[in-house]
Amino acid sequence: MERHFEKDLDTLTEEILRLGSMCEEAIERALQALVERDSEMAARVIAGDEALDQQELVIDQLCIDLIGLQQPMASDLRFLTTALKITPEIERMGDLAVNIAERSIELNREPLLKPLIDIPRMARIAVGMLRDALQAFLHQDAEAANAIIRRDDEVDRLMEQVFRELLSFMMEDPATITRALRLTFVAKYFERVADHVTNICEMVVFMAEGRIIRHGGIHPVS
Amino acid sequence: MERHFEKDLDTLTEEILRLGSMCEEAIERALQALVERDSEMAARVIAGDEALDQQELVIDQLCIDLIGLQQPMASDLRFLTTALKITPEIERMGDLAVNIAERSIELNREPLLKPLIDIPRMARIAVGMLRDALQAFLHQDAEAANAIIRRDDEVDRLMEQVFRELLSFMMEDPATITRALRLTFVAKYFERVADHVTNICEMVVFMAEGRIIRHGGIHPVS
Repeated sequence: MERHFEKDLDTLTEEILRLGSMCEEAIERALQALVERDSEMAARVIAGDEALDQQELVIDQLCIDLIGLQQPMASDLRFLTTALKITPEIERMGDLAVNIAERSIELNREPLLKPLIDIPRMARIAVGMLRDALQAFLHQDAEAANAIIRRDDEVDRLMEQVFRELLSFMMEDPATITRALRLTFVAKYFERVADHVTNICEMVVFMAEGRIIRHGGIHPVS
Repeated sequence: MERHFEKDLDTLTEEILRLGSMCEEAIERALQALVERDSEMAARVIAGDEALDQQELVIDQLCIDLIGLQQPMASDLRFLTTALKITPEIERMGDLAVNIAERSIELNREPLLKPLIDIPRMARIAVGMLRDALQAFLHQDAEAANAIIRRDDEVDRLMEQVFRELLSFMMEDPATITRALRLTFVAKYFERVADHVTNICEMVVFMAEGRIIRHGGIHPVS
């Protein structure tokens, strides 16, 4: 029974990592659609979202079944409740990849506003954070998770920079407003990807250390 | 024991409703800060967010303790796992209230761009949806939850309208760009509030009917 449960937990972990990889791929493809002005790739991202949604449901059901059938205690329970809370965070990143793909299709219909530098940089940091967060989850590594959280500051800094630059385009030439706005939204979506990764990392720390660092404070769990 | 557990579930429900009310109040105050150009009110919204964050942690711990100690089955387990997933949705709406308050403070430093009509309308629909979603959760009322989900379309429609109007301001007079952008962000925040309510309603339906309607399809739970 115990061994069976261990195996079930491994299966669950694999399914979560699979969802994470699907999401990572969606974000990378959305970035590619944007940078290479590839609307077919964007369409693939949009079409692929349903598989992510289904995968979230699979994981939910696995978690609920495992809690109900195995009645786990302590660290196993903490792992399962964390899994329940992490999967929607991952799935929302998939939704953001879709949003980026949609904006890319719109942008590809218009002339290029400017070569993109900071947005791809933001995107790559966000994807790297996601990849590392999944590893931190796998290894229940609170230290790694904390280090990932700190990388969110760089994403926020780039967001500020992108926003100011696009604003100056809009001010100087109203003909650029629509495109600059779409790019602003794209940057915001990547910023939100990094926010979701931060949420995941906070949950990993909670799981690994039994402490709550969410919402800024480190409190021992009473 | 059984009676004790019932009481614990009631306490948990009350705490979730309390979080919901705190969030509803935050959004209403943020709207008031925006419409009445009341930056002090906005500051109160920002300062009040920590209480919401703490309340989420209280609920999380209650859920985990109840699952661990009572080892609930079937519908009780479904209620508890739903509670775990609903609370972050509510808390994120509180974060959006903070974002709205922040943009309001910025807007209040500049001349009024235009009288606000559609944004308050969006906001009121979103808050009404939240209030009704909390009742649907309390009564485990899937029918009510489904009706609330449909109201999200009206919010999306208003968002489109607001966006087009603000875009035309920006195009006609670049001096309005910064303010129009801030208002666009505010409208987006209210749109996201309604999205979170929609997520909650989908979870209520899942809890009440044991079916998954999330992500568009109604599938019997295997």
